[in-house]
Amino acid sequence: MDIQQLVRSLKIQNDSKIVMLVADGLGGLPIEPDGPTELEAAQTPNLDALARRGISGSMIPIKPGITPGSGPGHLGLFGYDPVRYLIPRGALEATGIGFKLEAHDVATRCNFCTIGPDGNVTNRRGGAGRTDRLTTDEGKARVEKLQAIEIPGVQVFVEPVREHRFVVVFRAEGLGDNVDDTDPQATGVPALDPVAKDPQSERTAEIALDFIAQAHQVLADQQEGGRPKGNGLLMRGFSHRPHMPTFEEVYGLRAAAIAVYPMYKGLAQLVGMQIVGSPATLKEEIDVLERAFAGEHDFFFVHFKYTDSRGEDGDFDAKVKAIEEFDAVIPRVTALEPTVLIVTGDHSTPAHLRGHSWHPVPTLLVADSCRPDGCRSFGEKEALHGGLGHFEAVYLIPLALAHAERLAKFGA
Amino acid sequence: MDIQQLVRSLKIQNDSKIVMLVADGLGGLPIEPDGPTELEAAQTPNLDALARRGISGSMIPIKPGITPGSGPGHLGLFGYDPVRYLIPRGALEATGIGFKLEAHDVATRCNFCTIGPDGNVTNRRGGAGRTDRLTTDEGKARVEKLQAIEIPGVQVFVEPVREHRFVVVFRAEGLGDNVDDTDPQATGVPALDPVAKDPQSERTAEIALDFIAQAHQVLADQQEGGRPKGNGLLMRGFSHRPHMPTFEEVYGLRAAAIAVYPMYKGLAQLVGMQIVGSPATLKEEIDVLERAFAGEHDFFFVHFKYTDSRGEDGDFDAKVKAIEEFDAVIPRVTALEPTVLIVTGDHSTPAHLRGHSWHPVPTLLVADSCRPDGCRSFGEKEALHGGLGHFEAVYLIPLALAHAERLAKFGA
Repeated sequence: MDIQQLVRSLKIQNDSKIVMLVADGLGGLPIEPDGPTELEAAQTPNLDALARRGISGSMIPIKPGITPGSGPGHLGLFGYDPVRYLIPRGALEATGIGFKLEAHDVATRCNFCTIGPDGNVTNRRGGAGRTDRLTTDEGKARVEKLQAIEIPGVQVFVEPVREHRFVVVFRAEGLGDNVDDTDPQATGVPALDPVAKDPQSERTAEIALDFIAQAHQVLADQQEGGRPKGNGLLMRGFSHRPHMPTFEEVYGLRAAAIAVYPMYKGLAQLVGMQIVGSPATLKEEIDVLERAFAGEHDFFFVHFKYTDSRGEDGDFDAKVKAIEEFDAVIPRVTALEPTVLIVTGDHSTPAHLRGHSWHPVPTLLVADSCRPDGCRSFGEKEALHGGLGHFEAVYLIPLALAHAERLAKFGA
Repeated sequence: MDIQQLVRSLKIQNDSKIVMLVADGLGGLPIEPDGPTELEAAQTPNLDALARRGISGSMIPIKPGITPGSGPGHLGLFGYDPVRYLIPRGALEATGIGFKLEAHDVATRCNFCTIGPDGNVTNRRGGAGRTDRLTTDEGKARVEKLQAIEIPGVQVFVEPVREHRFVVVFRAEGLGDNVDDTDPQATGVPALDPVAKDPQSERTAEIALDFIAQAHQVLADQQEGGRPKGNGLLMRGFSHRPHMPTFEEVYGLRAAAIAVYPMYKGLAQLVGMQIVGSPATLKEEIDVLERAFAGEHDFFFVHFKYTDSRGEDGDFDAKVKAIEEFDAVIPRVTALEPTVLIVTGDHSTPAHLRGHSWHPVPTLLVADSCRPDGCRSFGEKEALHGGLGHFEAVYLIPLALAHAERLAKFGA
């Protein structure tokens, strides 16, 4: 029995409210020896006050040393063992654009590619030359053409992602998802056929073959300066939505998700959260939270993107500013008086590394039933000495439930 | 392989002595912001001296956020994964009164109930009215009557617990324990029959049916003011003793248990500890320890109840006093010079919450081979910085064995 199953067997209902603020990529690194991290450098009077009231800790997103993508990072935060609940690539790509996959859908992650007169792939990202790729607008224009494709007995969805990337979803009963990629992973050779690897997936492979044939007709005239450009497609990662128990089934929590970016709405939907509002900024996200707080939901996931974006940019100072922007909304959240308030990230994104990292994420949990831990501010170094200790992300929701008195005693 | 199996494969014998002092419900919470916990408020010069000699840590009884009952709490302390080794209700109730269950016994947790002239249950706790219940004396008097019941081929034990609660144990070879409860969980309906859910349990159900029929005859005249009162019984949680390897099998330790309350003697017996003495106070428990220390045992579990009791009462000051009483006996224990001395609790019982909680338990391990950790006193906040770190209870005995040099090197 893992921690989620244990918690599931102990959950009880009350009228407590839990708010989880996720500053994406929150954890950082110094850019000079003995210097502060982005969070330590930022002026965060409100988070520091929370650190004095609550308990801090150093959260390990997956396991020590493992750098999570956004999918596993968030699943861990939501208490779903991210090593057990893998999100297949096609489903993740669909989730990432906020496409709401139904149980029988088969999603695939597609690239526009370029196919030469000899039928061989000349560019796997749809460019006319060897290394260029389609722009987002060029990709979108082609997606619109593909949206006209019809296949009898199947609903077909074609949605743009970015540049040469797009998603195709086939919706019909009984479609298996065990189909080989058509991407040959090389140029100078033809695209592969979609081949079913089990009997239940034969119909899916046929549908994909039909779709590809029609797409090649629709895209036949795509060229630039007489050279073919983005006139074909490659399909990868055929997959169903992963099966996961919902937040309500596991925790008894009616959960709301407040996010700007589709990926995070999609991840929240995978665990059965309801998307609330359509905010475009952090301030608007908090507006949504304020309006929703007194309603039917008892868990609120609020996602803030820009701490991660500025880390990915490698811009230390801009990440510091993003953290200060995040700090500034804290009083609006505490004014709602949630029973439990969590502040965390799904992983670290140190500007110094310009990308996600394995470093633990400083994390705060604030509730009346917290045992004081002596932490005086919110930061990576201080969190090492906090009452939450060094802990894995999957324990965060169980701890929140405990502090909200939503867990019965285990055994007599 | 879990930690217990690993330790089992590495155990070696020597003449070291390990003492584990368990102050039940030791961990606490402040009753005012930034105030001390009960342990931090208590004057504990002896425990503080131990903290300077040994290593401290913040112990998680089960998993983060999980509040343990006494059963799982102690199993964890004894190094038995409490999520794996569940104690079924009937066995726990028998254990709780110190009844020594044998391997084939089937134990059940029973209530006296009241049955009206129409055969329906009018009160599930044996009262004459709708909400009253039997007193402990009234329960005991009825238990004595039931002790006369005889069933051919079966030894029947009937033992009082408290108020309307009692335990019935059937002892015979080959009795299954897969029998439905007879408690209808409602009034105004008749009690249910004990129904076997597998062939091996059919004889058990027959025996239970015979017992119930005889009991109803024996109790037929139980009434108050002309109204029936506690004239029937309900049986729940038919169960064998859970199968657990003994302390000696797993650790090679001949273990003694010294406790005042039956529950803790019962739990110790489940893992094969020998109950030593019959002390009535903490001082008498230490008398027993002193007398037994030079004998055949090499592990001593000493249980102190009142830290938990005063926490359950919600009486901060009384819990502080209980901790000081506990501190006062420490010199008598250290004078015995155990190779390893552990001071811990099975869970926290903050007076502030009037009950068990999920908060970690401050824990001390003292041995000559401890690596100094700089802790200056024994308390929750100080323990956050200790050499034991934040650790799960099942690692405590392995750590004790290591410090007693009772574990061989793993691998060459």
